[in-house]
Amino acid sequence: MSRPPAGAPLRVALLGCGVVGTEVASLISSQSDELASRVGAPLELVGIAVRDASKPREGIEGTPLAELLTDEAESLVRRADIVIEVMGGIEPARSLLLSAIESGASVVTANKALLAQDGPTLYAAADAAGVDIYFEAAVAGAIPIVRPVRESLAGDHVERILGIVNGTTNFVLDRMANEGLELDVVVKEAQALGYAEADPSADVDGHDAAAKAAILASLAFHTRVRLEDVAVEGIMGLTAQDIAWARSTDQVVKLLAIAERTAEGVVVRVHPALVPSSHPLAGVHGAFNAVFVEARSAGELMFYGRGAGGQPTASAVLGDLVSAARHRVLGGKGPVESSYAQLPVLPASQARTRVQIRLDVQDRPGVLAKVAAVVAEHGVSIEAVRQAPGEEVAHLVVTTHEARQEALDATVEALREIDVVDTVVSVLRVEGS
Amino acid sequence: MSRPPAGAPLRVALLGCGVVGTEVASLISSQSDELASRVGAPLELVGIAVRDASKPREGIEGTPLAELLTDEAESLVRRADIVIEVMGGIEPARSLLLSAIESGASVVTANKALLAQDGPTLYAAADAAGVDIYFEAAVAGAIPIVRPVRESLAGDHVERILGIVNGTTNFVLDRMANEGLELDVVVKEAQALGYAEADPSADVDGHDAAAKAAILASLAFHTRVRLEDVAVEGIMGLTAQDIAWARSTDQVVKLLAIAERTAEGVVVRVHPALVPSSHPLAGVHGAFNAVFVEARSAGELMFYGRGAGGQPTASAVLGDLVSAARHRVLGGKGPVESSYAQLPVLPASQARTRVQIRLDVQDRPGVLAKVAAVVAEHGVSIEAVRQAPGEEVAHLVVTTHEARQEALDATVEALREIDVVDTVVSVLRVEGS
Repeated sequence: MSRPPAGAPLRVALLGCGVVGTEVASLISSQSDELASRVGAPLELVGIAVRDASKPREGIEGTPLAELLTDEAESLVRRADIVIEVMGGIEPARSLLLSAIESGASVVTANKALLAQDGPTLYAAADAAGVDIYFEAAVAGAIPIVRPVRESLAGDHVERILGIVNGTTNFVLDRMANEGLELDVVVKEAQALGYAEADPSADVDGHDAAAKAAILASLAFHTRVRLEDVAVEGIMGLTAQDIAWARSTDQVVKLLAIAERTAEGVVVRVHPALVPSSHPLAGVHGAFNAVFVEARSAGELMFYGRGAGGQPTASAVLGDLVSAARHRVLGGKGPVESSYAQLPVLPASQARTRVQIRLDVQDRPGVLAKVAAVVAEHGVSIEAVRQAPGEEVAHLVVTTHEARQEALDATVEALREIDVVDTVVSVLRVEGS
Repeated sequence: MSRPPAGAPLRVALLGCGVVGTEVASLISSQSDELASRVGAPLELVGIAVRDASKPREGIEGTPLAELLTDEAESLVRRADIVIEVMGGIEPARSLLLSAIESGASVVTANKALLAQDGPTLYAAADAAGVDIYFEAAVAGAIPIVRPVRESLAGDHVERILGIVNGTTNFVLDRMANEGLELDVVVKEAQALGYAEADPSADVDGHDAAAKAAILASLAFHTRVRLEDVAVEGIMGLTAQDIAWARSTDQVVKLLAIAERTAEGVVVRVHPALVPSSHPLAGVHGAFNAVFVEARSAGELMFYGRGAGGQPTASAVLGDLVSAARHRVLGGKGPVESSYAQLPVLPASQARTRVQIRLDVQDRPGVLAKVAAVVAEHGVSIEAVRQAPGEEVAHLVVTTHEARQEALDATVEALREIDVVDTVVSVLRVEGS
């Protein structure tokens, strides 16, 4: 990596000027003295690339930053030491970052969609060019999770990651639990409050969480995990009754991103799950995010904070900017992402989990025996059976011990078919116990 | 920093071979291939300094590691590229680390007592010699907190840190809350279980937490905070009744290490405090640690995990070892600790906090008016007054709004003197709301 002359300013280019970009630009200019003292050289913002530089922008308009707006992104990245990308989307972000890397700039990006789809291409390009790529803001906003996984745990082995990495769905599930409301009502409320988009499908269908899961799994297991390797199930099938039942059994329902290393390989999945109320993830409320990590030596760790928003995301971007800038000034470079472990990535059917199955059954002798026989036939063992109180039909809740997802799926299918079962009311995985 | 020839092994010296040292030595030897691939060069453990090399050691005895034991610590550190210090105590750890730095080695230490007392000397020596000093394991064991504060938040401003950084006292308070037991009973139980030392005073008197608070405050505020700047109050004055009262008002009692930046300077203190049950710190149970950070842009963050133990501490040491070793191979160096901000460090009397005062008072008209008048005379305003149920004498609980500690202290003194107050039963600060 080339070093600028001592004390010479580092040229920083910003791609994108939405909520996060505006905040990043303001912080770079308002904290210039402090950043210079932390980096060892001043940072000079040399341009802010936007689609239409003539359009006035709130927070920028009327400030010296407005002079920096440009729609010449391609030439901007070629005259920068460090390029910060907060525009989002796949193109032109991908091409611009590759151009930046090619011309010797270090890059900082908050773009989870791009990293989940094509992170390894960017990591390899940065490695080949000897420049840094930092992306703390791409996963769980302000929460330092990428740096701890890449660096603090570099001498340990991550066994499992359980993350609440989507604030919108966590807000929705929390409101359902607190108010006893149905999901569609709460989603509308979240939209009205600005917590959910007009089209909330990326959040509620789990795709946002899946992108973050793919990035985290790749880092944690040194293995290339693609977005399409992640099995995704959103929260739309959940009912107020599911949440109430969870509560009555001292559990909460959370949308979890789960990445595990098993003896056979890596499994990555996103789905709603029952979590015991005593688990640290159960205390993550509202739009907060948290990532729970199980490592061989470190044991259980959890990282908690704001997963989105202009200021929190900008904080993560600035931390990365300082790291990359220090390397320009002092030499050295940040960690290299490589997929050296190349563990097999398995389908979610190979995951081991537990399920809680709620059944409406006929109210006559021998029903439990029949249900238990079907479960046993599939090689699944039962941890507990409860009869739910206050129901008109007999309501049976079967909680299994850990088994392979495919065996659990087959068990549920078989239960649907037997005559004593009227309805399989719900099936929820149980995690974190 | 000098670079070894590409691919040449890095010489690692280990000082200390207790629980943590044994674990570190085992991990370095058992994971040598993986560490080499992460570092870019093999790591060679060249010696393990102990007081008496002839004494057999569990976990080392009979393995090739036993060959590395030496009591020649001084010569060992002079032939290493990286020195790991896990011996604890001030001397000879301090002199050995300074020798190592002088002879050009990077250092990794888990020694909180040394850093709290004399960290800035070591940081300055490392900076002058151009070598790394890493110390993730010195604060909150396995929890990555030093790296996030030094690096992830390098473009942000930490406003406040609230930490549960002593597992023994957290275990004790948790047991008191769950079982309704008195403190001395639980401390004895913790000793029997090995969670508390035979002499538990460093834990229960808050001195262990104070050392960690001094280190964290120095990092977070770029200001030299000495151990003697930390106002310390332990948990020995707490009663089962305090804990029960907290519970009945939806609060928990935690021993907190608090470091704050105020308009006038930095205040650092350790004391028991009431924390609302809904606060993320309230969910930190047993011997776990957590550090809650409030930063200007990032907002609220929390870092949770095991604060002690051989394996968790070794995980943190190995993460630091990889960082330091990568810098030897690739050039560059880790963050430099300097006290460039030089904020004034204020006594705890200048902290702003809230208190909950429980009083036994005479049961006659006008009592509340007299109490309220005394509080108001000291410029303190009352948030709430409650009459505790089921007491023989009238029991009054006064919760104040935020005020300066010295005004709150004067208020309590004055309440002790007025005739309507029989006893000031307890005074607890309220934090995290």
